[in-house]
Amino acid sequence: MQDALLALTKYWTDRGCMIVQPFNTEVGAGTLNPATILRVLGPEPWRVAYVEPSVRPDDARYGENPNRLQTHTQFQVILKPDPGDPQEQYLRSLTALGIDIDAHDIRFVEDNWANPATGSWGLGWEVWLDGLEITQFTYFQQAGGMSLDPVSVEITYGVERIIMALQGVSHFKDIQYAPGITYGEAFGQSEYEMSRFYLDDADVETQKRLFADYANEARRMLDARLPVPAHLHVLKCSHTFNVLDSRGAVSTTERARAFARMRGLAREVSALWAERREELGHPLGVSALPDAATAPSSFAEVTAPAPLLFEIGTEELPPHEVTRSAAAVRDAVAAKLAATRLDHGEVVAHATPRRIVVLADDVAPREPDAERFVRGPRAQAAFDADGAPTKAAQGFARGQKIDPSELERVEQDGVEYVGVTKTDHGRGALEVLSGVLGEVVAELRADKNMRWNDRKLSFTRPVRWLVALLGDQEIPVTASSLTAGRTTRVHRTAAEPVVPVATAGGYLGFLAEHGIVASGPVRREQILKAARDLAATVGGTIDEGAEAGLIDEITNLVEEPNAILGGFSETYLELPQEILTTVMRKHQRYLPVRTASGELLPHFVAVANGACDRDAVRAGNEGVLRARYEDASFFWRADLKVAPETMKAGLARLAFEEKLGSMADRAARIAAVAGALGTELSTTDRSTLDRAAALAKFDLASQMVIELTSLAGVMAREYAARSGEPKAVAEALFDMERPRSSADRPPATLPGAVLALADRFDMLVGLFAVGAVPTGSSDPFGLRRAAAGVIAILRAHPELSPITLARGLSSAAAQVRAQGIEVRDGTLAEVEEFVVRRYEQQLLDAGHDHRHVAAVLPLAGAPAAAEATLREIEQRAGDAEFAALVAALQRVRRIVPADTRAEYDPAGLTEPAEAALHQELVKAKDAMTAPALADFVLAATPLTAPINTFFDDILVMAEDPGVRAARLGLLATIRDLAAPVLDWQALGTSFAPE
Amino acid sequence: MQDALLALTKYWTDRGCMIVQPFNTEVGAGTLNPATILRVLGPEPWRVAYVEPSVRPDDARYGENPNRLQTHTQFQVILKPDPGDPQEQYLRSLTALGIDIDAHDIRFVEDNWANPATGSWGLGWEVWLDGLEITQFTYFQQAGGMSLDPVSVEITYGVERIIMALQGVSHFKDIQYAPGITYGEAFGQSEYEMSRFYLDDADVETQKRLFADYANEARRMLDARLPVPAHLHVLKCSHTFNVLDSRGAVSTTERARAFARMRGLAREVSALWAERREELGHPLGVSALPDAATAPSSFAEVTAPAPLLFEIGTEELPPHEVTRSAAAVRDAVAAKLAATRLDHGEVVAHATPRRIVVLADDVAPREPDAERFVRGPRAQAAFDADGAPTKAAQGFARGQKIDPSELERVEQDGVEYVGVTKTDHGRGALEVLSGVLGEVVAELRADKNMRWNDRKLSFTRPVRWLVALLGDQEIPVTASSLTAGRTTRVHRTAAEPVVPVATAGGYLGFLAEHGIVASGPVRREQILKAARDLAATVGGTIDEGAEAGLIDEITNLVEEPNAILGGFSETYLELPQEILTTVMRKHQRYLPVRTASGELLPHFVAVANGACDRDAVRAGNEGVLRARYEDASFFWRADLKVAPETMKAGLARLAFEEKLGSMADRAARIAAVAGALGTELSTTDRSTLDRAAALAKFDLASQMVIELTSLAGVMAREYAARSGEPKAVAEALFDMERPRSSADRPPATLPGAVLALADRFDMLVGLFAVGAVPTGSSDPFGLRRAAAGVIAILRAHPELSPITLARGLSSAAAQVRAQGIEVRDGTLAEVEEFVVRRYEQQLLDAGHDHRHVAAVLPLAGAPAAAEATLREIEQRAGDAEFAALVAALQRVRRIVPADTRAEYDPAGLTEPAEAALHQELVKAKDAMTAPALADFVLAATPLTAPINTFFDDILVMAEDPGVRAARLGLLATIRDLAAPVLDWQALGTSFAPE
Repeated sequence: MQDALLALTKYWTDRGCMIVQPFNTEVGAGTLNPATILRVLGPEPWRVAYVEPSVRPDDARYGENPNRLQTHTQFQVILKPDPGDPQEQYLRSLTALGIDIDAHDIRFVEDNWANPATGSWGLGWEVWLDGLEITQFTYFQQAGGMSLDPVSVEITYGVERIIMALQGVSHFKDIQYAPGITYGEAFGQSEYEMSRFYLDDADVETQKRLFADYANEARRMLDARLPVPAHLHVLKCSHTFNVLDSRGAVSTTERARAFARMRGLAREVSALWAERREELGHPLGVSALPDAATAPSSFAEVTAPAPLLFEIGTEELPPHEVTRSAAAVRDAVAAKLAATRLDHGEVVAHATPRRIVVLADDVAPREPDAERFVRGPRAQAAFDADGAPTKAAQGFARGQKIDPSELERVEQDGVEYVGVTKTDHGRGALEVLSGVLGEVVAELRADKNMRWNDRKLSFTRPVRWLVALLGDQEIPVTASSLTAGRTTRVHRTAAEPVVPVATAGGYLGFLAEHGIVASGPVRREQILKAARDLAATVGGTIDEGAEAGLIDEITNLVEEPNAILGGFSETYLELPQEILTTVMRKHQRYLPVRTASGELLPHFVAVANGACDRDAVRAGNEGVLRARYEDASFFWRADLKVAPETMKAGLARLAFEEKLGSMADRAARIAAVAGALGTELSTTDRSTLDRAAALAKFDLASQMVIELTSLAGVMAREYAARSGEPKAVAEALFDMERPRSSADRPPATLPGAVLALADRFDMLVGLFAVGAVPTGSSDPFGLRRAAAGVIAILRAHPELSPITLARGLSSAAAQVRAQGIEVRDGTLAEVEEFVVRRYEQQLLDAGHDHRHVAAVLPLAGAPAAAEATLREIEQRAGDAEFAALVAALQRVRRIVPADTRAEYDPAGLTEPAEAALHQELVKAKDAMTAPALADFVLAATPLTAPINTFFDDILVMAEDPGVRAARLGLLATIRDLAAPVLDWQALGTSFAPE
Repeated sequence: MQDALLALTKYWTDRGCMIVQPFNTEVGAGTLNPATILRVLGPEPWRVAYVEPSVRPDDARYGENPNRLQTHTQFQVILKPDPGDPQEQYLRSLTALGIDIDAHDIRFVEDNWANPATGSWGLGWEVWLDGLEITQFTYFQQAGGMSLDPVSVEITYGVERIIMALQGVSHFKDIQYAPGITYGEAFGQSEYEMSRFYLDDADVETQKRLFADYANEARRMLDARLPVPAHLHVLKCSHTFNVLDSRGAVSTTERARAFARMRGLAREVSALWAERREELGHPLGVSALPDAATAPSSFAEVTAPAPLLFEIGTEELPPHEVTRSAAAVRDAVAAKLAATRLDHGEVVAHATPRRIVVLADDVAPREPDAERFVRGPRAQAAFDADGAPTKAAQGFARGQKIDPSELERVEQDGVEYVGVTKTDHGRGALEVLSGVLGEVVAELRADKNMRWNDRKLSFTRPVRWLVALLGDQEIPVTASSLTAGRTTRVHRTAAEPVVPVATAGGYLGFLAEHGIVASGPVRREQILKAARDLAATVGGTIDEGAEAGLIDEITNLVEEPNAILGGFSETYLELPQEILTTVMRKHQRYLPVRTASGELLPHFVAVANGACDRDAVRAGNEGVLRARYEDASFFWRADLKVAPETMKAGLARLAFEEKLGSMADRAARIAAVAGALGTELSTTDRSTLDRAAALAKFDLASQMVIELTSLAGVMAREYAARSGEPKAVAEALFDMERPRSSADRPPATLPGAVLALADRFDMLVGLFAVGAVPTGSSDPFGLRRAAAGVIAILRAHPELSPITLARGLSSAAAQVRAQGIEVRDGTLAEVEEFVVRRYEQQLLDAGHDHRHVAAVLPLAGAPAAAEATLREIEQRAGDAEFAALVAALQRVRRIVPADTRAEYDPAGLTEPAEAALHQELVKAKDAMTAPALADFVLAATPLTAPINTFFDDILVMAEDPGVRAARLGLLATIRDLAAPVLDWQALGTSFAPE
């Protein structure tokens, strides 16, 4: 291993990097060494390489996990500015390490980096060696909240991983560190003991004090304008925070507070450093970036129609940008060409991770000439009585550089003008295309954009080359520092990675000859077919439906799909399939192989990019999956040894929130709330609910969920079932975590739904009570998601209608109060409002009429009812009878003052219209069985006509007070009868005839 | 520079070292990295090399000092066990660095290393490259209080220094760090800012809290049996302590307490690590050391007398051990040979740093045979009446393996015995010498001894080879793993560094041919002559008398003196000569060159070892001296800009002791005490005293003294004089620091002496008052030295006799009390007793009779008086009259009970002897002018006879109480007259006739 470090050191020093030493306080990553995080700021050039033992207390595993260490070794390289070919330089460094890059499948897989704690981010990739992440490769865009100019290339090698792969060992301890001594022998004891410190033994109170002391020193050093010691203390803060975190001693609020503090300090450090370097006159000078290319000024002639080829060569695009960019570039070229007079065939585009290819046939050699009339003064004013040109006409003619005698007359809109017809000469195709294509490149944009070593261009990844041909002629295109030519780049490992393109025609075939499948659909088809063929060899298949998204992604990760069947030990099939497929899909982009009936087989299909040593690549990918599954199995087996009740005891060690206590406290509150809500329901399976409530959240204390948080609930179901709990209990525990996102399904079972509600009610009430309210940009606990979840559950389960928001929230409040925390009534109202707003948003997002939504919102405390009413409203679109009823009720409401009570003495109503309305009202009241809209409409429709008659015939505001009171009371009674149904006023004119 | 680090890394990895990374918390030296300090413990082998940026807050200089950095780079190598040739391996590493070791003067100069804070020490050298210390080379003997077995070789390269020498730059910032980037560009800002933090800006209270927190965590980790995190926290403690220290925030008591705490923790860490490694079964195995050589069992015959050569080859001995060892080995060989019967000529020995050569001519080929009589039973009991042997005789004969008839008769002490005469056959010379020489090696010892890769041998430095020849025959000698042979080693840079020795004869000549001058006196003479010749070329000379000790040292630093004249810029002569010569002598071992009248010339003589490129070596040495003088000039110039009063204000920032305040407080107390004491003296130059008192200690705040503490006082004199103070004031300030050691002279001037006393009285009283009393092994403030200084000053200045210890101490107490610190009377008595004990020791050490010392000790409160009395006593040795007086006075004292008062009524004395004694006593009283012994003797001698007559004639204990009282009163009066003179009883029988 030490030879590898020396080889990398030598490689990069030979390329002009200076070497510095690891930082002499604990850092979590080489990035935090001032040689990176400070030096990337400002204009000074900087090329550096160093080893950084990176300390991550959270990764401490007592040295037992084969792939995880509390201190792992990074080799860090910073190239500032971007040298233009950092990927190629990087690949050669792998060769220097002894990796045969022709034999292996080396890929740049989108992985963007952000460190909110320091206000830093960059775009780039994780580099895969046969599926193993061996390097983080980032174009550093911002650090300490400051945009970087120039940007730096950051290359971070994960040394242990690379060495394990090179040496073919499966546990870090078995790495041959130096001749005759293994990694375990050299560092094993330290790994164990520091794990003990970080996980079990560091004193929490001491670490908290250290955190405060370090932060204060950082503050003071900033005030003294000393960024270097300030940064040192920010790092010490950060490490101390990590220690506290690994000791499980940081609640979510504390985390947010600590992060805010560190972020603030880090930003100030960066700003101060940049300032100081400027004051020092940038001792290392100012980076040079390539100058803008000279724009073409003359263009050759084209003699015949010819095909167009325009290729934008990039570094590996993120998969979703491959498809999006192809379309966007095609549209841009087409639109810009449409704005010219150049004739051309259809514009089509193809894209791979490394290129966007635009093709068009039959591009005309030139634009045709075009004539246009330039209007001058009115003819009336152009000639005097003698027919001689007036001064106005003379002036116009002079301006147009013609003789007044050449003025033509044209009638426009009934008025006669003089003017002149001018000819716009068509430009040559090369000139037209030069402008269009140059603009397209300059205007390229993606969802997230970055800078590289170009002063102006900006795109999702660097644009490195352009090919622009019309037939066999080069189109002189420039875009900032880039100049198009006739050479393209093929696979980086090809014998000739840069090849000339003779002509635009047949370019897809040309690329295919170089092993590049430019068409996305073709690649996709190849992948699917190859994967199915491979799956068939082991009696399996690929579920195209389930894997559609993954196949799309894979399609955009390769230029030449090379599907490889890999296998894993059948023993891993004992793990829940969710675990296995999660790892395959999300981490590795492998296609799972299943039997026709959907059973997982111990196989997968990995898709390499281009030619490689298939056996080596298969073995590599299998090794990676094995390591991941080994991890998971380790957790699985360890967890299975622990009964759910025992495991649940571990919740006491997981902090939830400072005032709200541990996760155990929270689980107890959830259980109590669920119990209380359960009593409201006649339909619940009470014993299932009680048992599931008793175990609620127990899997959060499992090693598997601590490791793979997204499996919360999934693991609860598995572990509960395997420990002998009834299936219904296991399902309820699974259900209670749903919905996980807006796309997820709500709980299927009723006990699960009740628990899920209790969970979310507790979270909302508790956190609002302690003031942890979401703000515009920050919602660390995911309260918006929780609120949306409540609504989704209640909407999905009308049988839960006894559980109103108010009921649920007050039930949760009782538990929170029982813990000694004040929950004011105003707070509960605030929470309900917060939830209702989520609901409103859901409904609006679903496309409902905003007036209809507003009308049912007063019912949102029971979303199922609101839902039914909304449906009912929408079904009545175009229902004239209903529209009339609405209008009548709105009229009633407008007339009656809000404070009028719904009381009247029928005896006071003497006019016929009054009496008639009274009689109909009595009938309607009797007919009303429930305040549901359908019922109401049935009962109230007969009121429409009497109401209208009443208004026609009667003066409500009679002079006699008694009469007036009776009339208002009558109307108020109608109003109050309608009020619980919906907010009629809110319907506005949505039912008025158009 | 980074190439150099890579070259070293490569060199040592090629020799089986593993590479580790610098430690990720601040360490002061590579030694503290666990890869050294923990791994050297226990039996496991370990070979490691690493870079260590070593943080020394105290060396922070804002990047301005050309040679000093708060973080410098060490390259650390640990070879465990000692490979047997570590020096040779090291020298080859220099070659790998590009250093031409043939051209340069590379030396191993004694430098032992000890880190009391961790209970660690080792013996070794600093390695000099043309006078520049480039490496620390240590045989690690103890770590964390544990003896190391096996010992490790620790090689620590000072990288910046080596690179500065290689690149020929004179400021670290100018080092070419990497292509196109200097050290200053890369690290200058950090150097400045971290200096600011360490020197000015770190928050003292925070750092104190951090210290406590780290120490507590270390404690807790020890309790958890986790040595690795415990060590980490000890390091954090240590760094924090260093920060506090560089902030000037550590008082001497705090320092002692902090060190005690760190030492305790470090020791426990070491013990625990060793224990844990044992529990883990020593994962790296157990080091193999060379086995003991096979002891010779047969010896060849020698036919004729021949010369003996025995050479003990060592690594570079400390200079004082060269001479001492030669004598010791010669004596040992001579004594052991004397215990044999082997005839030989005179044994002589010579020594150089690398060899002890023993020679003797005419060693006989064999021991002669020898006869001896073995005594049996008495003859009487040996034969029965018949003359037949008794059973006793038969048994004896059987035991001696002879026939009873062979028994001889011998008379011894008048008794006749039987017995037998046996012949001890002489052994051959080789057998005799083999035993003798083997024992000599096994028994080699020095003042400080060490172990290396030998299981049994122990000496001041490793013994690496033995040559043992008798004429041309090898003597088969073994000592532990060593076997003597006939090859010796000459200069390491010789073409053949190992050469065969044909014969013992003419060995000195043989060595001389290889450039080695074995005789110390010859080398000394060569050095002196060469130095003088060189000095003469610039019109100077060498002061042999003043430099005798230095010349002795140089003699023992080389095997072949190669004196080289170097020069330095005359501008440095503006510096006080003490500075220049201190640097030359103590730091560089250069001989100063002076004019005949003693003026320093800008030249020096360095003495290289053996052949070299003299120009290169001269240039190197000049460069080193220039750098040191540049440092000194920097301080000098900076200090001269500051007036003494202003400088003195800086004392407030220097902590003295927690309770006793700053050095400014102390200086104020000293001034007040000196003022008070001055009033006692009529002879003092009062204005000088007052002015000097006002400036007392001001130079402690000068940069020069902070840097070179030994110049305290020296700089005060210089700076005071140059700022226009009167010469007497300057001298007083110089004087007040004297005596610095027991060998130093006391102050010459009276104001200086008064200040010096005030200084020491304050220190003693103050520190005793706050309980900082010296213990057996610990005297951090040097109170023993202070006490000895008080005595030395008072002994040297009889005119200060009004200043008794009691007077001085109570004067100091008044000042300490004024600072609010309680000083009990008992404490003052304790201090006085402490001082008197020092005095007693001084006198005993000077060889005075312990009885005489005891006799004058009651006078020690005024040492000058005690001194005079002691001299007087000693002059009276053999003075019968005095002896009689002593005896008479002792007799008086023995008779009179201690509580008898010196009062009597002369009228009660009626007997003639009584009356006579009374009359003589009256005369004696009148004759006494002072209680000085000489006066007393003159006055009291006439009492001798009457006293003796009194005792002969008078019964003191008369029955009549009145008579008895009068007689006792008479005697008590004599007793009390004699008492102030000295303690007569204590004289004992020292004056009694022999």
